[in-house]
Amino acid sequence: MRTASGERLKSTKNGLLMYIKPIGVVHSPFKKREDIKKAKEKGLSDFENSEGELEIFDEFEPGLKDIDGFSHLIILFAFHKARKRNLISHPPHDGKKRGVFSTRGPDRPNPLGMTVVRLLKRERNRIKVSGVDMIEGTPVLDIKPYTPKDLKEKASFGWLSK
Amino acid sequence: MRTASGERLKSTKNGLLMYIKPIGVVHSPFKKREDIKKAKEKGLSDFENSEGELEIFDEFEPGLKDIDGFSHLIILFAFHKARKRNLISHPPHDGKKRGVFSTRGPDRPNPLGMTVVRLLKRERNRIKVSGVDMIEGTPVLDIKPYTPKDLKEKASFGWLSK
Repeated sequence: MRTASGERLKSTKNGLLMYIKPIGVVHSPFKKREDIKKAKEKGLSDFENSEGELEIFDEFEPGLKDIDGFSHLIILFAFHKARKRNLISHPPHDGKKRGVFSTRGPDRPNPLGMTVVRLLKRERNRIKVSGVDMIEGTPVLDIKPYTPKDLKEKASFGWLSK
Repeated sequence: MRTASGERLKSTKNGLLMYIKPIGVVHSPFKKREDIKKAKEKGLSDFENSEGELEIFDEFEPGLKDIDGFSHLIILFAFHKARKRNLISHPPHDGKKRGVFSTRGPDRPNPLGMTVVRLLKRERNRIKVSGVDMIEGTPVLDIKPYTPKDLKEKASFGWLSK
């Protein structure tokens, strides 16, 4: 890659700004933001069987080497249809106001999303996955392997436990 | 919050650009990038006992409501000391060249990091955590709750298993 990271970080009076460029795009059974919301209202919470595809742009394909051995991938993406940068959120399955950092909703200070997907199959720059809870056209910002450090067996889940 | 997300997304001939603003900063026992590398070379892989603090900027504190019930938090951060946007990486504990998307290293197309930490204690806008593998001064971009959907008990870990 050509650019040093310094070129995409910029200090301003409001803090550090960072410039991010997508590496690919999500193809999803959910076409609109409302489709995700409806699925959640119907009680779908794990999205385990929602299949989709990550289409990685050609220039980034060499970076996919060695991912095939991992059963799960961490996808960082842009909530490109986010509407507001709320600090308080109304999760669809809850009914209460929650601090946005205790939720996974899209309307947050920085519209960054993270989902763990199961890797089903890769063909060159196209990765078939399940566990998709992003909408069609979602920009993919990064892919990381899911590692033992991400598996917290004794976790507790706050208000989500109720 | 004041800005609509559209104001920080920009289409260019090179793709979508996204502007990200930190919500806080990491205080860490690791002062430099090399400190992390050394710890890994000594065989520290889980960083489970590395304690640190997330200092969230005052304006974002209301968003922390309700996080206290969660044992673990997902931290998205900027690799602000990243040097290159490599597609091929040389993980310190491996010795082989790996596709960057099968590694967690900092020198990647978008310098975004993700770590799951254990929440130890919160006092207003300061969150004591363990599991810190970021360096001092790392910009925090987002905090998300660790949920059952992130816990993949039957995961397999590719080249990291060796």
